Amino acid sequence: MTRLLAAVTASVIALAAAPAVADTLVDNIEGIRIDEDGKIDRFTGIWIDDDGRIRQILDRGDKRPAGAEYRVDGKGQFVIPGMIDSHLHVMGLGLSALTLDLSETASLEEAQAKIAQYAADNPGRPWILGRGWNQEKWGLGRFPTAAELDAVVSDRPVWLERVDGHAGWANSRAMQQAKITAETLSPAGGRIERLAGSRQPSGIFVDAASSLIQAVVPEPTPTDRDIALLKAQQILLGMGITAAADMGTTIEDWQAYRRAGDNGSLQMRIISYAAGTEAMELIGGPGPSPWLYDDRLRLNGVKLYLDGALGSRGAWLKRDYADDPGNTGLPLQTATRLRNLMSRASLDNFQIAVHAIGDAANAEILQAVGELSESYTGDRRWRIEHAQVVDPADIAKFGEHGIIASMQPVHQTSDRLMAEQRLDEARLKGAYAWQSIRQTGSRLAFGSDAPVESANPFHGLAAAFSRTGPDGQPFGGWRPEEHVPREEALAAFSANGAYAAFAEGRFGRLVPGERADFLIVDRDIMLAPPGDLRDTQVRQTWVGGQLAFSNESR
Amino acid sequence: MTRLLAAVTASVIALAAAPAVADTLVDNIEGIRIDEDGKIDRFTGIWIDDDGRIRQILDRGDKRPAGAEYRVDGKGQFVIPGMIDSHLHVMGLGLSALTLDLSETASLEEAQAKIAQYAADNPGRPWILGRGWNQEKWGLGRFPTAAELDAVVSDRPVWLERVDGHAGWANSRAMQQAKITAETLSPAGGRIERLAGSRQPSGIFVDAASSLIQAVVPEPTPTDRDIALLKAQQILLGMGITAAADMGTTIEDWQAYRRAGDNGSLQMRIISYAAGTEAMELIGGPGPSPWLYDDRLRLNGVKLYLDGALGSRGAWLKRDYADDPGNTGLPLQTATRLRNLMSRASLDNFQIAVHAIGDAANAEILQAVGELSESYTGDRRWRIEHAQVVDPADIAKFGEHGIIASMQPVHQTSDRLMAEQRLDEARLKGAYAWQSIRQTGSRLAFGSDAPVESANPFHGLAAAFSRTGPDGQPFGGWRPEEHVPREEALAAFSANGAYAAFAEGRFGRLVPGERADFLIVDRDIMLAPPGDLRDTQVRQTWVGGQLAFSNESR
Repeated sequence: MTRLLAAVTASVIALAAAPAVADTLVDNIEGIRIDEDGKIDRFTGIWIDDDGRIRQILDRGDKRPAGAEYRVDGKGQFVIPGMIDSHLHVMGLGLSALTLDLSETASLEEAQAKIAQYAADNPGRPWILGRGWNQEKWGLGRFPTAAELDAVVSDRPVWLERVDGHAGWANSRAMQQAKITAETLSPAGGRIERLAGSRQPSGIFVDAASSLIQAVVPEPTPTDRDIALLKAQQILLGMGITAAADMGTTIEDWQAYRRAGDNGSLQMRIISYAAGTEAMELIGGPGPSPWLYDDRLRLNGVKLYLDGALGSRGAWLKRDYADDPGNTGLPLQTATRLRNLMSRASLDNFQIAVHAIGDAANAEILQAVGELSESYTGDRRWRIEHAQVVDPADIAKFGEHGIIASMQPVHQTSDRLMAEQRLDEARLKGAYAWQSIRQTGSRLAFGSDAPVESANPFHGLAAAFSRTGPDGQPFGGWRPEEHVPREEALAAFSANGAYAAFAEGRFGRLVPGERADFLIVDRDIMLAPPGDLRDTQVRQTWVGGQLAFSNESR
Repeated sequence: MTRLLAAVTASVIALAAAPAVADTLVDNIEGIRIDEDGKIDRFTGIWIDDDGRIRQILDRGDKRPAGAEYRVDGKGQFVIPGMIDSHLHVMGLGLSALTLDLSETASLEEAQAKIAQYAADNPGRPWILGRGWNQEKWGLGRFPTAAELDAVVSDRPVWLERVDGHAGWANSRAMQQAKITAETLSPAGGRIERLAGSRQPSGIFVDAASSLIQAVVPEPTPTDRDIALLKAQQILLGMGITAAADMGTTIEDWQAYRRAGDNGSLQMRIISYAAGTEAMELIGGPGPSPWLYDDRLRLNGVKLYLDGALGSRGAWLKRDYADDPGNTGLPLQTATRLRNLMSRASLDNFQIAVHAIGDAANAEILQAVGELSESYTGDRRWRIEHAQVVDPADIAKFGEHGIIASMQPVHQTSDRLMAEQRLDEARLKGAYAWQSIRQTGSRLAFGSDAPVESANPFHGLAAAFSRTGPDGQPFGGWRPEEHVPREEALAAFSANGAYAAFAEGRFGRLVPGERADFLIVDRDIMLAPPGDLRDTQVRQTWVGGQLAFSNESR
């Protein structure tokens, strides 16, 4: 067993030792919730039944039940609903967290030491994988070399992505496995770096050349996935996320989720959207799965892609990129194929979640939903994922057919400078337009897109109502008219997320009959200024009336 | 909904209406069981706890519990353990049972009428599939034609296998979909029949030519599999089989089993052996699955193939076939690959079940088990599936390393005339050598290989102790020294099947603590002569203390 596995397992054993579900009273708390009417309500106690569902929300004056088997003194701490992340990648987050992180290294020597240590700690890993290096930060004045990696790991292939993901650093073993020699030509859109005065590859592969190495990196094993799922749960529960929509579940991912459910180590709730219609049919069969493991797992539907991202100019725009005349990006599906895939899934009552970033992509999916809604009536909850750049002329259509806008507030603060380059003023009006979309009647479901961004929901909440980044910039907020009031942002990270996943009535609100998913946090999230809110610490995370994370236990 | 689906569903609803598990006393029965010491024991009552496990086996004089919630009067009927079939194909059985069976038709006209009726009953089926026709039996003096099929079904493709599986009959739609024209050439090893005096395909495809049509027959949908599983359960529970080893589970099969488990319609127990190591890893991940759904489903390991069958001379023999000089059959795996696959599975503690029919195949797997046992110690329960023809010099090796001989008694009675042609006297000594193998200390686990043979375990029991077929031939039994006494045959169809599946202590015996899986049958199976035993009728089948089948309810 690697140290990593041992550490993750030890942590899970600690969690498993949490009290089993019992008729429980969590009392003496400063509770904040969205009540049955969608309003913010303050309360002081939660009475949980022995199925882990909320029996009663208690106000200061309410009589406490005499018979609760188990009592928790909240010591006046703040309690809020468990956060629901409506768009992330569970397995991607876990696998990425298990690789070596070099982003904090300040020199090549420090990086080499860290790589050597990681290799020693993980003798069973056939490849050493990592990310985050930056030769500029190291003051190296050049790329590092394969020889500098060989000096610390020569028994196994090593492959480390640069901080921006646009280059990779391989050792000689990795290049051997990929059959890279002096004769190997750089592929279109990429470059194999060479040693000075030679054809010999230096170990650095830029852009499309990365795929030459990537192609021989082994797929994660089932055990890798099991460990990654434990790791992802540890991260997410520690940040206060009790439920997450997994965008792009493969059959291998699903089997890992089921293994965790079967052996009792699935603590958080995962709502799956299959990676395409084939995975959907293989996972769900003739329709969405039932809710499994006390509402901890369900296959709801399918994730489809209509375009790429703004940063790489893969987003599909109606007009040229402002900083790249002649380029509008591209749709990843033809109109016919998109509708065929949506039809196939809808016919069997799978929910549809379509990635659309550019204004052309958003216009196209809005149009397609309009057309399909004629055939596929009823409560479909069509989801548009990201809805990042929408032509202001199209925004009103979000209010039709019960469309859900699944958006990630942190993308706005991370991407705004890049977006200002890619788009002109007129199009920026429809970018990250949370409030305009909300006002059409569309329901907002917020998420993080982790591991692309941090999964921390308090970063998302702060961005949502302030439109400012961690540095407080820009002063007053970027296009502040699109901000979402604090209580609406909280709903978008909880009750709306449940609704977007057909889970209302099961979890997402602190109301009687729903699962008792809640957090004990160290501050009043309704009053903390944005900078403070970002630093919110989760002290305990409860899922279904059971303690699933406690920062005191670490 | 097709009538077929409606019929199957109605039957399942009827079963679901059976009483839920309660503390139950089944009394006034003539019970027959294998007791804790492996001896036949007679008893008169079963007391079942509310988990569906046996609390007590009661003899005539024993005091009856006063508090049982639910009492069943057995009215003096015979009760025996639920039968365990250690080798069959659950999904193959169900899918095959859902196709059109023409084996009872006596004329082309009768077959046409039956085909038309089936098409009308199944408007939603995109293809009409069937089997069992025989133009000789019809007195037709020629093959039937596509036109004769078109006359009854022209809106959809039709594809019907001949009774021997060596030819298929297609209608014009099926040929169109397969792009068969007058120009299509017959493939090697096959023949496209042509209309007299023409190149026009007649609709009959012989041997390898069948694959031209087979290639365009659609894969079963998830709904097809769900219906097939219900159908297979109906058949098996109706025959008294309460648990079965599924030999060659695909991920699609597994997902159907899980769907049934999740929605409560998995009534019988299925022990899965994955169709190869890739399916094994996808289904089980890092190791065998846990026992799921109250011991109703588990992935135990992997099914591997080492050779083919005797009938088609695919079985791998040490010397030439007696009726085909120069041909020894072929191994389907090299020695190295076999050991690699076995190693890969054993490393992760999956159980190995290897198909071996010919004496060379059996020698090879016995040798491989011997080698692997040095590395993979502990309780492995290596399974050899079929073990049909074993060199008498090799039989002793079955007693080593805890090898389990998973054999199908009915193959002996069905195949004996064919075996006598394929093999010479010396080799026949080691054919279907149940008793010789048992005497080495190897445990016998009996099954049917359904749908290749009928799953009826009473046919298997009768064959096992009589070595005679349904016609009572040959008088005195074929090589009767290899017969298995009745009580040992019963154990091979129950307790040994559980042991072969690592399920002892869970089910397989009527002893306290095990699941209450038992049958009410219409005769004393320990006394009935072979012909009578074959006709045993199952009146009720109970699985885990719940009534899962009753022939009175139909």
